Amino acid sequence: MLENPRLRPPGGTGWLAWLRNYRAAWLSGDVTAGLVVSVMIIPQSMAYAMLAGLPVEIGLYASMLPLVGYALFASSMTLSVGPVAVTGLMTASLIAPLAPAGTELYLQLAIWLALLSGAMLFILGLLRMGFLANFLSHPVISGFLSGAALLIIFSQLPHVFGLAALPHTPAQLADQWRPVNSLVTAMGLISLGWLMYARTRLAGHLVRFGLHVGVARLAARLAPILVVVLGIAATAGFDLAERGVPVVGDLPAGLPSLQWVTPDWSHLRVLLIPAALISLVSFVESVSLAQSLARRKRESIDPDRELLALGAANACAGMSGGFAVCGGLSRSVVNMEAGANTPLASIIAAVIIALIVATLAPLFPHLPLVVLATIILVAVTPLIDLVSLRRAWEYDRAEGLTLLLTALGVLVFGIEGGIILGVCLSIASQLWRGSRPHVAVVGRVPDTQYFRNVNRHLVEIEPHLLAIRIDENIFFANTKAVERALLDAFNDYPDTRHVLLILSAVNHIDSTGLDMLSELTEGFAERGVRLHLAEVKGPLMDQLTETDWISQQVGEVFPSTHIAFNTLANLKSEEPAKTE
Amino acid sequence: MLENPRLRPPGGTGWLAWLRNYRAAWLSGDVTAGLVVSVMIIPQSMAYAMLAGLPVEIGLYASMLPLVGYALFASSMTLSVGPVAVTGLMTASLIAPLAPAGTELYLQLAIWLALLSGAMLFILGLLRMGFLANFLSHPVISGFLSGAALLIIFSQLPHVFGLAALPHTPAQLADQWRPVNSLVTAMGLISLGWLMYARTRLAGHLVRFGLHVGVARLAARLAPILVVVLGIAATAGFDLAERGVPVVGDLPAGLPSLQWVTPDWSHLRVLLIPAALISLVSFVESVSLAQSLARRKRESIDPDRELLALGAANACAGMSGGFAVCGGLSRSVVNMEAGANTPLASIIAAVIIALIVATLAPLFPHLPLVVLATIILVAVTPLIDLVSLRRAWEYDRAEGLTLLLTALGVLVFGIEGGIILGVCLSIASQLWRGSRPHVAVVGRVPDTQYFRNVNRHLVEIEPHLLAIRIDENIFFANTKAVERALLDAFNDYPDTRHVLLILSAVNHIDSTGLDMLSELTEGFAERGVRLHLAEVKGPLMDQLTETDWISQQVGEVFPSTHIAFNTLANLKSEEPAKTE
Repeated sequence: MLENPRLRPPGGTGWLAWLRNYRAAWLSGDVTAGLVVSVMIIPQSMAYAMLAGLPVEIGLYASMLPLVGYALFASSMTLSVGPVAVTGLMTASLIAPLAPAGTELYLQLAIWLALLSGAMLFILGLLRMGFLANFLSHPVISGFLSGAALLIIFSQLPHVFGLAALPHTPAQLADQWRPVNSLVTAMGLISLGWLMYARTRLAGHLVRFGLHVGVARLAARLAPILVVVLGIAATAGFDLAERGVPVVGDLPAGLPSLQWVTPDWSHLRVLLIPAALISLVSFVESVSLAQSLARRKRESIDPDRELLALGAANACAGMSGGFAVCGGLSRSVVNMEAGANTPLASIIAAVIIALIVATLAPLFPHLPLVVLATIILVAVTPLIDLVSLRRAWEYDRAEGLTLLLTALGVLVFGIEGGIILGVCLSIASQLWRGSRPHVAVVGRVPDTQYFRNVNRHLVEIEPHLLAIRIDENIFFANTKAVERALLDAFNDYPDTRHVLLILSAVNHIDSTGLDMLSELTEGFAERGVRLHLAEVKGPLMDQLTETDWISQQVGEVFPSTHIAFNTLANLKSEEPAKTE
Repeated sequence: MLENPRLRPPGGTGWLAWLRNYRAAWLSGDVTAGLVVSVMIIPQSMAYAMLAGLPVEIGLYASMLPLVGYALFASSMTLSVGPVAVTGLMTASLIAPLAPAGTELYLQLAIWLALLSGAMLFILGLLRMGFLANFLSHPVISGFLSGAALLIIFSQLPHVFGLAALPHTPAQLADQWRPVNSLVTAMGLISLGWLMYARTRLAGHLVRFGLHVGVARLAARLAPILVVVLGIAATAGFDLAERGVPVVGDLPAGLPSLQWVTPDWSHLRVLLIPAALISLVSFVESVSLAQSLARRKRESIDPDRELLALGAANACAGMSGGFAVCGGLSRSVVNMEAGANTPLASIIAAVIIALIVATLAPLFPHLPLVVLATIILVAVTPLIDLVSLRRAWEYDRAEGLTLLLTALGVLVFGIEGGIILGVCLSIASQLWRGSRPHVAVVGRVPDTQYFRNVNRHLVEIEPHLLAIRIDENIFFANTKAVERALLDAFNDYPDTRHVLLILSAVNHIDSTGLDMLSELTEGFAERGVRLHLAEVKGPLMDQLTETDWISQQVGEVFPSTHIAFNTLANLKSEEPAKTE
């Protein structure tokens, strides 16, 4: 099996290595995946365009050229990019303050947002700045996605009931309610029921009917197509649009043309922060998804290459009149399960989508919006991640709180506010943790070379030697706490004549910490107490060597606590204590 | 000597312990210090009020009752509070955007600022929130003070030349220049020359004339009094005010009355951020000063008590019509050198100042502003701290840069902007350092129980065992880097069957790090490689015990690397490698 070329990672590390080394054996998988994915993502793409407040064809435009752009630079063999719920929501909420929905300016801003975000991602890739994404911790990402999912669900509720907007009071609702709203709601409930059944049970039932597991799972993934087809058939057949059921409506005919409207600086400037945010979220989402897919196929990905690929995809989206794209979970999983071996699968999907759009476009205007809304609802509900919340909360209250407050921040302050709040909270909780260092007085475990906390273990100590282990980097946020802990330990052992700081867990000391240590050493010296160090790490010692503290104030620097204990215990017996 | 009660710390820990245990032996020192300090701070207080954009008597008001308020709660026996250059500058720059200088509103806002800051400090003291000051690192404080000193110097230059404002071009200067400006400039240069001579040489020369060192030093500290007296004599004698030399001008007669103007909420709200900033800076400055004084006298201080005392001092300042106060360097040093044993010295100083103000007030209107300006110039120049800049730069480029950019930030964006920039930079550089962890593959130093970096030392390794030490807490900013380092090490040793993570320097793992480790362990397991841990610290183990990672994925957790090495090496020999 291991010799089967289809199981070999086709990627390689060079540019387009998958294409240069392409093997005929990979083709059937790529073609199947391309077909399945294209059918699956057409309804999704239209739905997410609606979510973004854009005409549905914009979602289709964003599902063709961007896939090719991504394939040119991709390091992931299976990630499938395109419009996703989060980029849809972010586009809507970031542009809504700048232009009224439905206007030409709104559409143009969405396109420029994709272009700008593409440029940013590409430049970050060239600069190898993929590490920036590290500043979004998992609780922040999870909280952000949960909050965003709730926002999305809320935004789609009016469509499910066929209303222009959610009424504020039951009286308003009763006032607005027309017979057609009941009809739309019924269509929505049927669609929702089918989609939820398809997501949870359908594959199992198909297997019971004799289908192969993989095929059954793929068929279940394609279930949305059925509601789309039925929705179009019903509205067209019974002329429901005439009776007031909201539908997609007229679309421009055919394929998008490449276009370029030079943005003016004032527009670009207001889009800078939104573009940075959408880039950050797209990158984090895409890369973590690509990594988890690559792990399943025992491949590896290159985050900087992914930045370039996402940049190219978004640039292509902007140039072909689409909106911002990133890697999507469901489409990528379907792509992999359908057998995709290389990004060729995505190129094939793009071609098929173009063919479908060119031929079936006249049918799309009949599609009821309620169908798209239910597709969105079912797609985003799993983003509300209560499992992560419970796990984070159990592991560390501060992280659970960060997750919760990030989600709330997204709901209350919007996407920008929520993300910024989350990042600040995760940095603050990191500082808070660092500001409360664990400092332990240690003694020797009898007859060994090990040293342990005197409060946790039965250990031997030397009467005039105070050995203290500091379990934290010493930096501005904890210098006072470290100083207090050292002075408290010193007061607990008043006979001390040698203080030994064990720095095995100290990887950095900043200048605030160094100043504190220097003043502390001076204070000890005035009391006739000498300060020594043990187990200073190489990189830290390199940095400290040049300082006056080490060269003039510190006694000796011992390679191990064991040697320090022996040496300082002997020192004491040679020159007897002078105190009292 | 040790039995001399004057050398015993009089403080104690209780409230007003110094007063309850007061000894007659301390009185002479306190009286001398009170006398000397009161004479010294009268010109300073007027100068800093001018710097704050306030009538000079406001500085005198802030030099009486606040000293008593501070004494009630003080834990420092020698700190002397009052108007200082930094609170003067901060008052001016924080209130200038809210009201035109010289108006009744400006004065009222300055008073409310002191009250609000006093309330904040007192509440922070009650809540024991002194730790908040830890977030100002030394480079930020030093950079802030340097930037503030430059701002102060720049603000005083017009006074030195007798101009209303500095001209923008030489032509303007020539245009504005009157004979009186030359006169003022001459007075300024004489005053400046005397003050600089007094600061650098006078004490030495006085010693040569036979004075005791301590007395000579105190006399030099009182030098500003001479320029004040001569300045008053000159303007009064030659009627210079009539000829256009700017003078202090009319003062209200006598002592301030206790006053209370209830602030309205709209004013309080705009003052919240300024009050928070001035509180933070006052607290950090006062406490670090109090600590360094206490160390010289082998006493100790309590930061939370200092918060209460500073709160009381500022509340008293506000209630007696003064502006914000904090601990001053030069006045505290003079206080200590003149023999202050307890805060009684400050109370005596306050009483003497009141007497002087009540009797000599009619002379103050003749005081030329140029004299006050030169007193400020000479006082703040030492705050420009190039030594700290050089030291921080040599120790760590990032910290040097933080100091420099904080100073520039104060100059370019003002005090608020500069402090906020500095705090952000010090947090960012801390994260940046944490995001680049040191990860080392280690081996056993032959015939010992020590394990060292294979790249730095000659050590023994086991063929199927990869032992890796991670020298950093694992958290969101470095999970990717740690993962990369572990995978790189794994690729360097392809025969590995057991990976041993040595966590001796890991004090925390956040949930992002835990997720990474869990996925990594899963990836190793798929390759038939087992992950083990060694030297997990107690608090970290307590947190990890509950996780699925430890209970289901990790192999064994060893107390020491030595035991891990022996156990895993034997494991290997019992069950021979299956790879290949």
